[in-house]
Parts: sequence; structure tokens; C-alpha cells
Amino acid sequence: MKAVILKNRRISVEEVPLPSMEEGEALIKVTKAGICNTDVEMIKGYMDFEGILGHEFVGCVMEASIKDWIGKRVVGEINISCHKCEMCQAGYPKHCSSRLVLGIQGKDGVFAEFVTLPLSNLHCLPPEISDEEAVFVEPLAAALEVLEQVQIRKEHEVLVLGDGKLGLLIAQVLRNQTSHVFCVGHHQRKLAILQRKGIRTFLNNCDRNQKFDIIVEATGNPKGIPEALNRIKPRGKIVAKSTFYGDSEINISRMVIDEIQLIGSRCGPFKKALDFLRNKLIHVKDMIDGDYPLEDAQEAFELAKKTDTIKVFLTP
Amino acid sequence: MKAVILKNRRISVEEVPLPSMEEGEALIKVTKAGICNTDVEMIKGYMDFEGILGHEFVGCVMEASIKDWIGKRVVGEINISCHKCEMCQAGYPKHCSSRLVLGIQGKDGVFAEFVTLPLSNLHCLPPEISDEEAVFVEPLAAALEVLEQVQIRKEHEVLVLGDGKLGLLIAQVLRNQTSHVFCVGHHQRKLAILQRKGIRTFLNNCDRNQKFDIIVEATGNPKGIPEALNRIKPRGKIVAKSTFYGDSEINISRMVIDEIQLIGSRCGPFKKALDFLRNKLIHVKDMIDGDYPLEDAQEAFELAKKTDTIKVFLTP
Repeated sequence: MKAVILKNRRISVEEVPLPSMEEGEALIKVTKAGICNTDVEMIKGYMDFEGILGHEFVGCVMEASIKDWIGKRVVGEINISCHKCEMCQAGYPKHCSSRLVLGIQGKDGVFAEFVTLPLSNLHCLPPEISDEEAVFVEPLAAALEVLEQVQIRKEHEVLVLGDGKLGLLIAQVLRNQTSHVFCVGHHQRKLAILQRKGIRTFLNNCDRNQKFDIIVEATGNPKGIPEALNRIKPRGKIVAKSTFYGDSEINISRMVIDEIQLIGSRCGPFKKALDFLRNKLIHVKDMIDGDYPLEDAQEAFELAKKTDTIKVFLTP
Repeated sequence: MKAVILKNRRISVEEVPLPSMEEGEALIKVTKAGICNTDVEMIKGYMDFEGILGHEFVGCVMEASIKDWIGKRVVGEINISCHKCEMCQAGYPKHCSSRLVLGIQGKDGVFAEFVTLPLSNLHCLPPEISDEEAVFVEPLAAALEVLEQVQIRKEHEVLVLGDGKLGLLIAQVLRNQTSHVFCVGHHQRKLAILQRKGIRTFLNNCDRNQKFDIIVEATGNPKGIPEALNRIKPRGKIVAKSTFYGDSEINISRMVIDEIQLIGSRCGPFKKALDFLRNKLIHVKDMIDGDYPLEDAQEAFELAKKTDTIKVFLTP
């Protein structure tokens, strides 16, 4: 099969053997996949991964030990857990101490014609969700994780820092909880998508005097959290969504005096993401910038790397 | 009256006028006061304060607009709030945007023969609590704030970083919630106090491989939080208690991937501290290193500054 291989910080499209299906897994034909910022970061060396890239996808089950799965249109959770360790037993399989992560850590990804995943990672798609929408399930779940961690009431004033792919999804998710959602970004075109949803946006800078109850930091930048600390109310909560290389300089005394909470947030609930898409609470159409055949992955990545691009698809 | 004045980063005992009592306030004769690390930091320039130092005390009400208060033995909360601003109205008067803080910010403190405070800041002491114990109400309340912010269950493994005054109180408070309390400190004599309460202690370093569900950072040091991040389990909570000059270098990506929470924590509930002391859940006797007359404040501060000292009293 054809696949996009990352090796020595370069990607290439190569012919590779079909993945071998293990006990409890499904063999899935990938219908469509999405390029995530993490993929772009991984080419720079993040996570030190080599193999088939990609973790956002929709596909069709071709083979499975439980025959009911065959023919099902599915999306898949990316953490492959042991279901035995302390974190798994505590109900946090995505924090499994020996986890593999699809296209990120120890497990070949979805920029290929076929991929294998444990059946327990799969979710069937209802017909109301298109393939294009389905590729957004994984990042939308990550956006929805914010609501699992922080209670947002309708009177809360909430700021999203960053208008990247994840920032745009988070702002739209939060807009369902409160009408007081603000976003600071750097791209008028991206912010316009949010403006159409009733989200107030600021290009580059927001009013310095305004303070927020909750801030979600999705800039992908070490300066994001210090910036959030400048804009949060006492007793406020900052949700950290960005992963990047290096440390941030944090004024801990400020956090103590004002009793600020800083909450790390990663992958989220697929079921809720599917509900969101089925109920048309998120519109993904205006976030798609291109759809390339797998052979043109190089070109697709060039587009994905541009700062004003939102989402680029690969179709095997 | 005699008072300990901080000016130009020096303290001196001076004769000053009695404080004038304002509407809604009490005039209190200070019976005994405690030197806190914050007082020591303030002499170095923290908070940029000049005036009468001190915020931990027990006293007797001499005058008050509500006559029932006169003669009462009291302790007092240190934040003097406007009761009108957004934070006050939201139920967080200690985060009042225009607050004064006793002996710390805009309000003369308790290292004096007399002090004034709003009646709404005062708590009557039951006879079961001695004057020595009462001086610990304020720092004990700060230790108890941890329980207001984080739910600690009996199966949780909890680490306290730091064996200063606050670290010792926090470890004892946590020991009431779970038998799995550990403390890393630098002073065998201080750690021995905790050992007698069934708390497991480590001198300088704990087992590198052990990870904790909850860590309370009370080292007073910018390296405390990075150290806590090395020892926290995924989904764990770190409570930050230290204030100090400067920033800490924090690995935000680690917080995101492992969904760690960092929770700033300051002043706490006086009522619960009074309950703790009345029920003899904390024993303060072995934490008292000296009791000096106000005139000898200089000498008392010299003792308080020593790293192996726990608590020093001043008696006007």
C-alpha cells in the first residue's frame, strides 16, 4: 500500500506492506485523513517519531475478529492502552503508562491506504456525519475536553488565545456554553469564521483592561500562558492546550496570590464530538483549505505549514 | 504605644500614636503575635510595605461600636475588603480588588501594643484554644485552604515539598485526610515533628521513582514547582503555596500531555482552623522556638531568619 513515511525529519510517499492485524484489532481502509499541527511539529522532531504519520481520519472496517464491525464507517481514538496499569485501572486509559499513540508514538498512523486499530478504539459514524466532518472528530474531541475539565456558565467571560485549528474549534465549542466568548488571533480570515458564530474577535491584541473568568490557551507558543496570566481574573482558570518544545516563564507568586488554576488538557471525548457534529453545532466546511491525494502529501504539507491555512485533507 | 516599624528595609521598635478606630472597627490589645516568613521577606523588600509589621496575632477587644465585642479574646482575618467590588460580590472578599492586608498592604500590622480591624474580620476564641495556639490560626487557615481546593481521599498519596512553618502545618492537615502523607525537607529536627504524627519524611530527597496523586509545594523557592512536576502522576494536582520574587521555568507541554493541574492557594478558612485547634488535631507546642518582648524584636527576627527555626512569638 501507499503511505506517507516520516524518517530523518523528512516525509516521503512510499510503497509499504499492509499492516498486520493483531488480536482484537480491525483492519481499516482509510477514506480521508487530516493534517494536524502535531504532524507538522513531528517533522521538526517533536516526539522523535519515525514511521507512517497521521492520526485524524475516517475509514471503513475491512476485517475484524468481531464480524459485526466489517463494513462499518468509523473514526478511531488515538491512544492504544494496556487496560492493566494503574492509570488504566483508575479510568484514564489515555494516560496509560505504556500507551502507543496512533501516528505519534510507537504505532503507524493513518496517512496510508490502510491502518489497524483495536476495536475498542473505534466509533461507528451515523449517516448524518459526512466524511469531511468525521475527520474533525479527533480535534473536536480535544476541544471538548475543556468542558470536561472546567465548568463554564452562561455568565462567564471566556477568552481563547490563538486562532489555529484547535483555537477555532475551542471557541465554537465554548460559544455553546456562553455568549461571552472572545478570541485573540493573528489572521483576519480565520477570525471571520468565528465572527459569523457571534464570537467577538481581536486581531493581534485585545483590550488590555478586560479580564476573563476562563482563558483557553491554544497559541502553540511558550508565551501563551504568561499572556493568559496577564488577562485572567483572580480565582480564574486557564486551560493549557499547547504543546511545544521548551519551558515557559511563569509568575507562580501571581498564581498563589490570585489563586489562579492552570489546567493541562489533551485528548477528549469522541462520543460528545460525534453528538456535536450530528447536531450541527460545529460547521467544518469553512475550515477546509484543500484535499490532496496521498501521492501529493509533500504539497499538502506545504499548504498545511502556512500560518493562514486551517485544515488540509489527504485522500488515499 | 510601642510598635515594630519597617522602613527602608530595616525594622526598629518605636513609640507611635495609638491607631484611630474607624466606623465598624474594633481596637484590639495585642496579647501575642507570630513572625511569619512573609514578614522576613518584607524586610527584604517584598510587597514594598512600610509601617507596622505583623499579621499573625491573638488579642483582646478594648473598644468597638458593637459593645458585645468588648472584652472578647479574638483572632483576625488579614484581608480588609470593600464588600462592593466584583470579587467581593462574587463571594471572594479576600480577592477584593481594593483590599488592604494587615501588616502587608496599606494597613498597619500587629507587632504593636494595639491594632484596629473591622469587626467582620474578627473571630472569638473558645476557652479550649490557648493564646499560643491562637497565633497559629492564620497560617493554619492557609494550610486548610488546600482542602478547600482539592479533594483528598484516603487512598491518595500526597507529598508536601518543604518543611518550613507552612509545610509542617500542611503536612499535619493532610495527615487527617489520608495516611499516605510524605514530606521532603532539609531539617531533621523539623521532619521529626512530622514523623511523630505518622508522616513519612525524606531528608533532602525522596525516592525518585515514587509518583504522587497530589503535591503541595511550600518550599518558598522558584524550583519547587518544576520539582513537583517531576514527581506528580498523570492527572495529578499540584497546589502552589509559595510566594517569592521571580519566575519559575515550567514545562507546559508536560502539563498538557499528562493533564496536570496547578492550583494557586493563599489565605484560608479561619472557622475551620479554629475547629482543628479546638479538637486538638494539630499540636503547636513543638513548633515554638522562642517568645520575645516587643522591645527585643530585632533579636526575635534574627532567630526567625535561621533556617532551622519554626515559629517565634512577640509579646507586647
